[in-house]
Amino acid sequence: MILDIDHVGIAVSDLDESVEHHRRTLGVEPTHRERVEDQGVEEVLFAVGTSSIQLLGALGSDTPVGRFLANRGPGIHHIAYRVDDLVEALARLRAEGVRLVDEVPRKGSRGTLIAFVHPKDMGAVLVELVQDR
Amino acid sequence: MILDIDHVGIAVSDLDESVEHHRRTLGVEPTHRERVEDQGVEEVLFAVGTSSIQLLGALGSDTPVGRFLANRGPGIHHIAYRVDDLVEALARLRAEGVRLVDEVPRKGSRGTLIAFVHPKDMGAVLVELVQDR
Repeated sequence: MILDIDHVGIAVSDLDESVEHHRRTLGVEPTHRERVEDQGVEEVLFAVGTSSIQLLGALGSDTPVGRFLANRGPGIHHIAYRVDDLVEALARLRAEGVRLVDEVPRKGSRGTLIAFVHPKDMGAVLVELVQDR
Repeated sequence: MILDIDHVGIAVSDLDESVEHHRRTLGVEPTHRERVEDQGVEEVLFAVGTSSIQLLGALGSDTPVGRFLANRGPGIHHIAYRVDDLVEALARLRAEGVRLVDEVPRKGSRGTLIAFVHPKDMGAVLVELVQDR
């Protein structure tokens, strides 16, 4: 079911500054940048191995990442697992009584299909599932 | 410098219960279990692709993960990047003015060499660097 860690999402206060900081300190180079309006974020990905580091800037204070930053400050926001079959993965979670943020797959960045799982049933970890198209 | 995401460390209140929960909900199987006395943790790894999910149980309340759980509750604790040369990576971070928790590599689990980087200089993210031996 889970193929890999697709990415780790990190909420940042200043996207450009954080991109530059990651380049300088970790020697990684951005591989993708995208504004995802319906999630209220602008994201920058750095491919590392078969996974990515994802920096998330909020498009406004009244967005999920904007509220996360206001409440908790910058830091790790979620972990995303790459799955082979997102519909099947959601069915398994539902059967195990896990609450889903997204009952059906929706469009993510990079043309992927994604769904978020409720952190209350995942040990307070916000889990995203990602299926490549 | 960075080869991959080695693992994401998740602090949990009850290690056995969380292992079982991960098996049931995500369909992953534990691949390694180790008590790391000098870090005050017992860890269980689930290999996914070329990375791992790492569940961390505290060996006592007066340990880093014990204090994390008391202060913030369970959740994502750190992200670990696999590097080819840990000494070189630490030198680069130091040259960029980043404070290090571990100035020199120390022994991690699975026979690895590890060092933690101070979250204050990494956007409030606790970063671990891991070199395979």
